[in-house]
Amino acid sequence: MYARGATDDKGQLLTHLLAAEAWMKTIGDIPLNLIYLIEGEEEIGSPHLEEFILEHREKLQADVVVISDTSQFGPEMPALCYALRGLTYMEFIVTGANQDLHSGMFGGIVPNPNQVVAAIVAEMKGLDGRIRIPGFYDGVKPPEGWEVAEYEKLPWNDSDLAAQLGLPGLSGEKEYPAPVRRWYRPTLDVNGMYGGYAGKGAKTVIPSIAGAKVSMRLVSGQNPERVAELFEAFVRERVPDDCKVEVIRYQNSPAIIIPVDHPAMQAAKVAFRNGFGKEPLLIREGASIPIVAFFVDTMKMPSILFGFGLPDDNPHAPNEKFTLADFHRGIATSAHFMDVYSEAAG
Amino acid sequence: MYARGATDDKGQLLTHLLAAEAWMKTIGDIPLNLIYLIEGEEEIGSPHLEEFILEHREKLQADVVVISDTSQFGPEMPALCYALRGLTYMEFIVTGANQDLHSGMFGGIVPNPNQVVAAIVAEMKGLDGRIRIPGFYDGVKPPEGWEVAEYEKLPWNDSDLAAQLGLPGLSGEKEYPAPVRRWYRPTLDVNGMYGGYAGKGAKTVIPSIAGAKVSMRLVSGQNPERVAELFEAFVRERVPDDCKVEVIRYQNSPAIIIPVDHPAMQAAKVAFRNGFGKEPLLIREGASIPIVAFFVDTMKMPSILFGFGLPDDNPHAPNEKFTLADFHRGIATSAHFMDVYSEAAG
Repeated sequence: MYARGATDDKGQLLTHLLAAEAWMKTIGDIPLNLIYLIEGEEEIGSPHLEEFILEHREKLQADVVVISDTSQFGPEMPALCYALRGLTYMEFIVTGANQDLHSGMFGGIVPNPNQVVAAIVAEMKGLDGRIRIPGFYDGVKPPEGWEVAEYEKLPWNDSDLAAQLGLPGLSGEKEYPAPVRRWYRPTLDVNGMYGGYAGKGAKTVIPSIAGAKVSMRLVSGQNPERVAELFEAFVRERVPDDCKVEVIRYQNSPAIIIPVDHPAMQAAKVAFRNGFGKEPLLIREGASIPIVAFFVDTMKMPSILFGFGLPDDNPHAPNEKFTLADFHRGIATSAHFMDVYSEAAG
Repeated sequence: MYARGATDDKGQLLTHLLAAEAWMKTIGDIPLNLIYLIEGEEEIGSPHLEEFILEHREKLQADVVVISDTSQFGPEMPALCYALRGLTYMEFIVTGANQDLHSGMFGGIVPNPNQVVAAIVAEMKGLDGRIRIPGFYDGVKPPEGWEVAEYEKLPWNDSDLAAQLGLPGLSGEKEYPAPVRRWYRPTLDVNGMYGGYAGKGAKTVIPSIAGAKVSMRLVSGQNPERVAELFEAFVRERVPDDCKVEVIRYQNSPAIIIPVDHPAMQAAKVAFRNGFGKEPLLIREGASIPIVAFFVDTMKMPSILFGFGLPDDNPHAPNEKFTLADFHRGIATSAHFMDVYSEAAG
């Protein structure tokens, strides 16, 4: 069992602890061996988690990892998440002259790194949502038939969501419906762009340095290392001779798909049915939980995403919450999972 | 006489005060009427100067305004500057969703203002230095024959300058020589570009807001108001429907050309010849001094740019200086100017 630091996550962690306690109090024993892995550094990028797991590799070996970091699809819509997008996070920093210069005295004869960053960013992705880095989409597959059936079952409300965000509608690749754009298509977003003067008013500087921070959400079939290489090559090829560029790679984690027919997934389905009184929906998430890839790829431990929160729980934000009803149903679901999975796993 | 706040400018102001004192001490009188206009707010954009001048319009009326804010072309190369570029300074701010969003959860379905800013900036100007705002170059004229002769006389050293700036060479429109790019061609530079996370490391935000601050140096023949309008239209036409844009106009001042045959220019030539022992070079400047346009256009007072500093005086920077030799020659030049101009003006 692995849970993270936010209130939401702590509440979810408690459900598993209390489920075990319930087993002890009622039956006198727990039907399987439990190892709890509790981390407090997730919000600073988990700098020690992988190292810690590797160090305690043998003690932490398990048949399945249960991770409570996802949420229901909506109120009274419990869900099992079987896929996460991966993440390649890059930054490129363009340098022109060795100092900031006055645009009156030097405008017209020196390169402007802001201009170079803008040209590269603009070429990288169209306003139609299409990413133009050659090879970027290699390996990307459309959803399978059963997946289309699953996401079409869900009560998506694009116009409500758009209105809530102050937008006239949802944006992105027009040829794909919104659920596909969120879960099945890779994306590229410039998360930060900087260069020169960003304060109030006017300043006529030609900056020495400008840069962009870019995250790419990856789907299964894409290799994060290769995406990082394609990105870097794309940038380097486009930096003109009068500028230099530095490319930084921050993070590279692959997309995750958990086989829905895995015994732990099947056990989780039954547990949700008992705990929430409803068949759980099968959903994906657009975000990334890098440690899941580590559990699956490096530790070779199947991992399931088993979350009880709601999309409006406001994790890390004011009025963060975890409803008591979900807390109680979560405890019951966890207790049922221990029962069903222990029988399935023998 | 008008001088500004930096040390360099204060030193130049002193030359004119001491020249007048020399006249008083030697002859007992000054050959013309002098009005000194001394301002201390230039570095914060002269918020009260125009208002002050208008308020004291009659007292400040003069045959000629002598402005000491330019410099020699180099050591032992005294110069009279007869043209300044104008300045139109704009900012545009693009808003997408009404809040910053998580790129994992919302990547692929919401607009990213960074992307919109980059697309517009990239389209606005090519990396070849060519500005692509339709109509921007209307009215721009090539240098006249005598001007080409003047700038060809000057000891330009492009490769030294490039090396000093850490560049492999000077950049910009290849079809024009560097002096033309600096003095006769209008430019556009993005002085600031901002949006999302610009700190250390990685943050996966899709920002609500991104923007760019853009200065355009204008040459004679271009109308700053019209350039501002063309710029604004160019930006507005390119903002997609899922974003909003705000366009801010900060500054609009036209380019200035001082007729070289004006009696004050002719008097200044003689004064330099006497004060520095050399014929002054006739040069332009790439930067803008907005108050000059105000003196010329609003106050209808011819203005001459009469500076004694050196290009490496480091105004506003560490080790700012004004050499004693230039200080003394400046005093002599100013004293001679009073003499020659008073005779020319009768």
